[in-house]
Amino acid sequence: MTKKNILISSEEMQHLLYNLFFKYHFSVEKAKLLAQTYTKNTLDGVNSHGINRVPLFINYIERGLVHVDAEAEKAESFGSIERWDGNLGPGIINATKCTKRAIELAKSNGMGLVALRNTNHWMRGGTYGWQAAEAGCISILFTNTLPNMPPWGGKESRIGNNPFIVSIPRKEGHIVLDMAISQFSFGKINEYKLKGEKLPYFGGWDSDDELSNDPEKILTRERGLPIGYWKGSALSMILDMLATLLTAGNSTYKIGLKGHETAVSQIFLCIYPELFNDKNIQETLLNEIINYTHNVEPMCPGDKTYYPGERSLKTRIKNLKEGMSISEEIWNNVLELAKK
Amino acid sequence: MTKKNILISSEEMQHLLYNLFFKYHFSVEKAKLLAQTYTKNTLDGVNSHGINRVPLFINYIERGLVHVDAEAEKAESFGSIERWDGNLGPGIINATKCTKRAIELAKSNGMGLVALRNTNHWMRGGTYGWQAAEAGCISILFTNTLPNMPPWGGKESRIGNNPFIVSIPRKEGHIVLDMAISQFSFGKINEYKLKGEKLPYFGGWDSDDELSNDPEKILTRERGLPIGYWKGSALSMILDMLATLLTAGNSTYKIGLKGHETAVSQIFLCIYPELFNDKNIQETLLNEIINYTHNVEPMCPGDKTYYPGERSLKTRIKNLKEGMSISEEIWNNVLELAKK
Repeated sequence: MTKKNILISSEEMQHLLYNLFFKYHFSVEKAKLLAQTYTKNTLDGVNSHGINRVPLFINYIERGLVHVDAEAEKAESFGSIERWDGNLGPGIINATKCTKRAIELAKSNGMGLVALRNTNHWMRGGTYGWQAAEAGCISILFTNTLPNMPPWGGKESRIGNNPFIVSIPRKEGHIVLDMAISQFSFGKINEYKLKGEKLPYFGGWDSDDELSNDPEKILTRERGLPIGYWKGSALSMILDMLATLLTAGNSTYKIGLKGHETAVSQIFLCIYPELFNDKNIQETLLNEIINYTHNVEPMCPGDKTYYPGERSLKTRIKNLKEGMSISEEIWNNVLELAKK
Repeated sequence: MTKKNILISSEEMQHLLYNLFFKYHFSVEKAKLLAQTYTKNTLDGVNSHGINRVPLFINYIERGLVHVDAEAEKAESFGSIERWDGNLGPGIINATKCTKRAIELAKSNGMGLVALRNTNHWMRGGTYGWQAAEAGCISILFTNTLPNMPPWGGKESRIGNNPFIVSIPRKEGHIVLDMAISQFSFGKINEYKLKGEKLPYFGGWDSDDELSNDPEKILTRERGLPIGYWKGSALSMILDMLATLLTAGNSTYKIGLKGHETAVSQIFLCIYPELFNDKNIQETLLNEIINYTHNVEPMCPGDKTYYPGERSLKTRIKNLKEGMSISEEIWNNVLELAKK
């Protein structure tokens, strides 16, 4: 079965999504932010956390897992650190608000940290890295998730792939690292399965507890491989600990008890580098690192090396010009939802 | 050729090292700190950045790369963020001082960040994670290094393995993650070579630009593999960018131009979790995560899973009781240096 893709402009997607979210009782402002964010994520090529994820988001609303009217509220405050409660509101809206708050705190104190509990999936974490960078801030952001990888040496998934984001503002294009701690997401593994291809590297364990690059075998048990084996396992665990402890919210363990990914814990740390008053030096230093890594001889002739965020920017520019290539089936699903 | 190991007590090592460093014109206080730190690193089983590294440290002093009398000084200050200059002093002394300062800043502001440029190798990064945890602080610390891994897709080493440390204080044993961004250090790869064994996973590229688990083939060109392939490559790059930009110091590129690892850039970020006034809840949340991951059925019967830092603590307790197993050859080298 070949899946057909179609080209959709960002205006068209944003318009449809706005109508959809407005129909689901979001305020004008919130429906706009949600529509913009799902469209932005798709524009940057992250369809999995853009348009493809909209039907599941609606499903979560219908099941009462995401509360349409709920908003993140400040629970406690200690200087440049604040604890917020997401009240099970939409992850995108909560994360945008908390990033904005961390930026404000950074601009008045040099650094700011917002620890957000009881929120929902923020979709693409990188979105908030771009948001911080657009506002002139460095950001370090992470979230915990459902258990989806075994802790190193264990048989069962008990740690999360806990996406980790770092961003740095830069005139010629922000630097944005957006990586889950898993080597491949199950979504990506499924794409390989649909193409009938093997993964280029190990991606998880098969039913015989052997590391495998066979998508089908990995998806049977959904035990993903952490980046760097034991190293990513430890990194995932400590990010979960930080998120849980700083928010006084749910850990991957607690999220796993619920059976669906909700009430997660997230950290938004911003630093305002303009306080150093040497923006030009900073740009020069960043470009020095970028040029050095760009100018390396490629391992395979014709290949290129990239800085984190470089390809997202290229994809965005291309998609803005040519339209976003998305699954026709998913587009039709979303059209249906908006009509219902 | 079999290398003989001997058992040395921590008192004996500390005593010898104190005499050695005092002979090399360190003040009483500094010689003590250096001796303590090299001993602590060895006690925790990190011989590579403990006793084994002492001869190279002395060599760097003799070559004028490490300045015995130099001290880190505050260069600029912006609220809870400070920039320090290490003045090419000993990495251990500078890092200990800057960790101490980040802890102070965190205790008065909730969070504190010290960005240190022109410093030298801090040996085991985890040491400062333990230091912060002992003082009741969370820490996020990293350093840049010489280029020792190719950026993803490139042929030549142009990014560093940039050790990354996260620590969390905990009554029953601190959580301390201490990981380089390389899958294996060249030191570890060399150990496999000496044992005539292959690495359990890819560790770098051979001369034909193929990923390899053959220690000999990797060591020919010293092109290490980042954890998670493209992911670790991007993480290494962005840590270097953060360290360089926040310190206004040297990047991995600039350090590489020198040909030896000196004048590196380091970040010390501390958070003081006691300000939340819920220490008992925090301990409960941490233990919940630890118990959940401890209680997993092992992949191989008899195996165990660990939290970050757990094995260091076990090793420390064992070594304190039984003595530290170290290379006789290296011990004799250090004895020679102390006598000279």
